[in-house]
Amino acid sequence: MLQLYFSPMACSLASRIALMEAGLDARYHQVHLWTKQVADDDSDFKGISPKGAVPVLVLENGERLTESAAVLQYIADVKPEAGLAPPSGDPDRYRLQEWLSFVGAEIHKAFLFPIFWYKDDGSLAKPRARIAQTLSVPSAHLANREFLVGDRFTVADAHLLWALLLLRPAGIDVAQWPSLSAYLERMQARPAVREAIATEMALRKTVPVSPA
Amino acid sequence: MLQLYFSPMACSLASRIALMEAGLDARYHQVHLWTKQVADDDSDFKGISPKGAVPVLVLENGERLTESAAVLQYIADVKPEAGLAPPSGDPDRYRLQEWLSFVGAEIHKAFLFPIFWYKDDGSLAKPRARIAQTLSVPSAHLANREFLVGDRFTVADAHLLWALLLLRPAGIDVAQWPSLSAYLERMQARPAVREAIATEMALRKTVPVSPA
Repeated sequence: MLQLYFSPMACSLASRIALMEAGLDARYHQVHLWTKQVADDDSDFKGISPKGAVPVLVLENGERLTESAAVLQYIADVKPEAGLAPPSGDPDRYRLQEWLSFVGAEIHKAFLFPIFWYKDDGSLAKPRARIAQTLSVPSAHLANREFLVGDRFTVADAHLLWALLLLRPAGIDVAQWPSLSAYLERMQARPAVREAIATEMALRKTVPVSPA
Repeated sequence: MLQLYFSPMACSLASRIALMEAGLDARYHQVHLWTKQVADDDSDFKGISPKGAVPVLVLENGERLTESAAVLQYIADVKPEAGLAPPSGDPDRYRLQEWLSFVGAEIHKAFLFPIFWYKDDGSLAKPRARIAQTLSVPSAHLANREFLVGDRFTVADAHLLWALLLLRPAGIDVAQWPSLSAYLERMQARPAVREAIATEMALRKTVPVSPA
C-alpha cells in the first residue's frame, strides 16, 4: 500500500486529493513541519526525507518519492483508468507538466512559501506585488475551460486548487479573478476534493500554525 | 524545426544544452527579459508568451510550450535514442521529474529568482540563509554518482548544471560543496555543454544586466 507523509493543508493536500480521486487506499502519516517530527511517534522526519518537506510518497517497493510534480504523476500513472493524467506520448502530458511546474514554482515557491515561512515585511513585499501577474495566467486559461488540461480533472487541477485555497490565508482575495473563483468552487464541489479538505482542515486545528 | 526563445544564461540555457546534446537543429530567438522584447525585431515577447518568461519552445505544429520541466522532457522525448530522459514507464522517469521540480522550485524560484530580480536586502536575506540546506540535497546525492539520474547525462543534469553556474554571480561559492564543484566541472567538460555556454556567454556581453 502506498504511504503519504503530509502536513495538514500543506501542498501534500494535492497528493491526498489525487489518491482519493484515483480511489487508491493509502496510509497517511502526519508530519509537523516546524519541528520536523512525524506525529505517529515523534520520530525525526528528516530520517524519512532529508529535504524535510512534504509530500513524501512511499512506493510499494519502499522507495521514497518527493516533489509534488513527481508524486502526482506517479499516483496518476498507478491508476491510468482514473484519467488523472494524459498518458505518456499524448501531447497533453507536456501541458500537465507545464502546469505542475507553474503551480509549484510560480505560485508555491515564489509566493506562498515566502508568505508562510519568511514572515517579515522585507521578504514579503516583492512576492505580494508579483502575485497578480502570476495569477493572470491561470485566470485567462480558465476563462473558457472547466479544467487545466483537456476536458477532465487531472492532478494539475489538484495542485492548482490547493494553491488557490491558500490564497485567502496568504491575504489574497481570489474573488479578484472570477474565473479562478468559479473554478475553485467547481473543484470543491467534487466529493473526493471536499472529503480531502475536510479531513485536513480537521487535523489542521490540532497543530500550531507556527513556532511559538 | 523547433524554435527556442531564450535569454543568455537564463534558465533557458538548460533547454539549449538539451537540444545540443540531442543533436537537434533549432532556431534560437533571443529575448530581452527586462524589456520583454524579442531581439530579432523588437517585437513584444508577451505576444509569444503572456508569462514573459523563458524558455518558450515552439513545437513543429506551432504550439508553444513553457516551463523548463516540460520543455526539457519534450526535447528528450523527441530524440529518445539520445537517452536524455528515462523512457515513460521506467521508475527513473519519476526521479527525473523529482529533480526537475527540485531545481526549478528550490534552487531557481526560491533562491536565484529573488537574488537576481528583487535586489533589495530585505528580500534576499532569507533566501541566502536557506540555500546551504537546499544545496546539501544534490551535494549528498552526487557524492558517489556521476549524474543525477541513472548512469548517463539527462535533462535533469542540464537543469542543475545551469543552476550551479549561476551560484557564483549570486554570491555563493560552489567550492563549499566539493561534490557539486566536481560535478559542475565534469558537466562543463562535455562538448555540447561547453559550446552552449560559450554561445550564451558571448551573447550575454551584448545585453545590459539590469534596467538602467
